[in-house]
Amino acid sequence: MQQQISVVTLGIEDLARSKRFYGEGFGWTPVFENEEIVFYQMNGLVLGTWLRASMEADLQIKLAAGPSAVALAHNVPGQDAVEPLIKRLVETGGRLLRAVDAPPHGGFRGHVADPDGHPWEIAWNPAWPIDAEGHVKFGV
Amino acid sequence: MQQQISVVTLGIEDLARSKRFYGEGFGWTPVFENEEIVFYQMNGLVLGTWLRASMEADLQIKLAAGPSAVALAHNVPGQDAVEPLIKRLVETGGRLLRAVDAPPHGGFRGHVADPDGHPWEIAWNPAWPIDAEGHVKFGV
Repeated sequence: MQQQISVVTLGIEDLARSKRFYGEGFGWTPVFENEEIVFYQMNGLVLGTWLRASMEADLQIKLAAGPSAVALAHNVPGQDAVEPLIKRLVETGGRLLRAVDAPPHGGFRGHVADPDGHPWEIAWNPAWPIDAEGHVKFGV
Repeated sequence: MQQQISVVTLGIEDLARSKRFYGEGFGWTPVFENEEIVFYQMNGLVLGTWLRASMEADLQIKLAAGPSAVALAHNVPGQDAVEPLIKRLVETGGRLLRAVDAPPHGGFRGHVADPDGHPWEIAWNPAWPIDAEGHVKFGV
């Protein structure tokens, strides 16, 4: 069985607001978009941002409205890249959750929620290598 | 800017319960574990299952208790692989959310929540190629 996540789909309320954060904040380009969903090709998986109502209809459940108990991380290649990215994410509709610091396990990181409350950690983690295609390997 | 997710972290209540679902259900092997977190090396990113209380302390926010507005998908290489995996996930602590069917966009899929309510789509999507390392590409 492949240890594989094919898609991460985030429920959102407003496509334009979300596109500003992911497009201008992270600087990511959609691979597909229509009036209810935007897909981004990521490092071996696909990120979808989908209107929460459509997602609830598809899953046939009511989804929690508060910050989800799911956190995503985007690792950057150096400590210097952490703060400028967090600043840009806050400028494009994100909300600072936790100011940058050096965590006990090493590296440097801070946390930002996207406009729909989904938490992102922006981290420099020197123990976890990232290759040219963005593939990230666990390390200690 | 790399279009890259480094880590997906799921908040959980019970490590053993979650390990049964991901270990026996999906058949995945941890790359690291301690008394509060289990990491799995995935296809170019890392999956973490972390006690919700520790996660809340780290993020410094209270996380929603209901099904999160985040869905993950695991794609399989053929239609025949969808139902056996869903059956095994339900046997190892998952909850069926939506029975299998053929969605309008093609393929075949069903939905299961993990023991903490995190929704997973198990899908065969012939338009989205998966390579030997599990890297998934958007397609139409």
